[in-house]
Amino acid sequence: MLMSITAQDVQKLRASCSVGMMEAKKALTEAGGDFDKAVELLRKQGSAKAAKKADREMSQGRVHSYIHGEGRIGVLVEISCETDFVARNEAFVEFCNDVAMHTAAMSPIYLTREEIPAEIIAKEVEIVKEQNVGKPEQVMEKIVEGKLEKYYEEMCLVDQKFIKDEDMTIAQLVESKILSIGENIKIKRFCRFELGV
Amino acid sequence: MLMSITAQDVQKLRASCSVGMMEAKKALTEAGGDFDKAVELLRKQGSAKAAKKADREMSQGRVHSYIHGEGRIGVLVEISCETDFVARNEAFVEFCNDVAMHTAAMSPIYLTREEIPAEIIAKEVEIVKEQNVGKPEQVMEKIVEGKLEKYYEEMCLVDQKFIKDEDMTIAQLVESKILSIGENIKIKRFCRFELGV
Repeated sequence: MLMSITAQDVQKLRASCSVGMMEAKKALTEAGGDFDKAVELLRKQGSAKAAKKADREMSQGRVHSYIHGEGRIGVLVEISCETDFVARNEAFVEFCNDVAMHTAAMSPIYLTREEIPAEIIAKEVEIVKEQNVGKPEQVMEKIVEGKLEKYYEEMCLVDQKFIKDEDMTIAQLVESKILSIGENIKIKRFCRFELGV
Repeated sequence: MLMSITAQDVQKLRASCSVGMMEAKKALTEAGGDFDKAVELLRKQGSAKAAKKADREMSQGRVHSYIHGEGRIGVLVEISCETDFVARNEAFVEFCNDVAMHTAAMSPIYLTREEIPAEIIAKEVEIVKEQNVGKPEQVMEKIVEGKLEKYYEEMCLVDQKFIKDEDMTIAQLVESKILSIGENIKIKRFCRFELGV
């Protein structure tokens, strides 16, 4: 079924995916007017573009801090980019602050799922399997997969839903910034201290 | 040899050890007028007083950050105290900032010497022994001890000389703050990020 392409959708798509008007229209046309599908399409293209930029050197960046509640929680993040011009760019600084603020609020433990020790994942899988004992193997596989994704989403900064826009993960936020700022950007590390925790 | 006790020395001692006039005079008298010896005496007494406070609960405190050079270096410290009254106290906040700033400048790797992995200390000892091969055992012992102290002073935050006053270590700075602020204070942890390091 072909849906109509509204000017509102084009506007919304431009804003949420940081693309130009022609690109937004093209994606909506390709998606048959389906807004969510158009977002999906643009994100895939975005990922491809972002990947192309990934081998450029990232020697610049910014160490940024965010303190919450009169020093009850503090976060330090290091975010890399390619040039010190971008490192001083207002949009980049704002992005660093968003990531630090998100980290303060959402207390991730790891940066990426690759950092989780194998034995912790094994333990999670074991618990899920125990809770679903007796389920057919294929169903079990799906359940385990789903539960692990939930686990990553809870524990890993890049897999968490961005606190200011739950429609995107932090990884997708990074991708959108790579596109809008125009050079490769990477969250390199973070540190979060909470008083007495 | 008895040295005279000058008013200047009493003043200086009061300032550097955060003690009252009577205490400063007493220490100088005990030290026979020798300023350095009086400092030593007061520090020992301070340590004793500080140790007495060490078992009081420290559930309050502050997570504090310091960013240097437009985000080139960032430090996060957590410093514990006993009451949230002190956590908000100006002198305490200033102390937190001093520790964070010092950490940014002096890049310690560990908080205390107890944190250094045994194999790293063993390696250091090995190097020193190789450099001094042939020395008598007792001399060697002294050399190793001295070199290890130097190593701690370089690597461990609490053993480093305070950048704003090289006459005291960070541990001694903490002790002086325990005495002047009047409750137990402890540097609990720190994190230091330097761009691309």
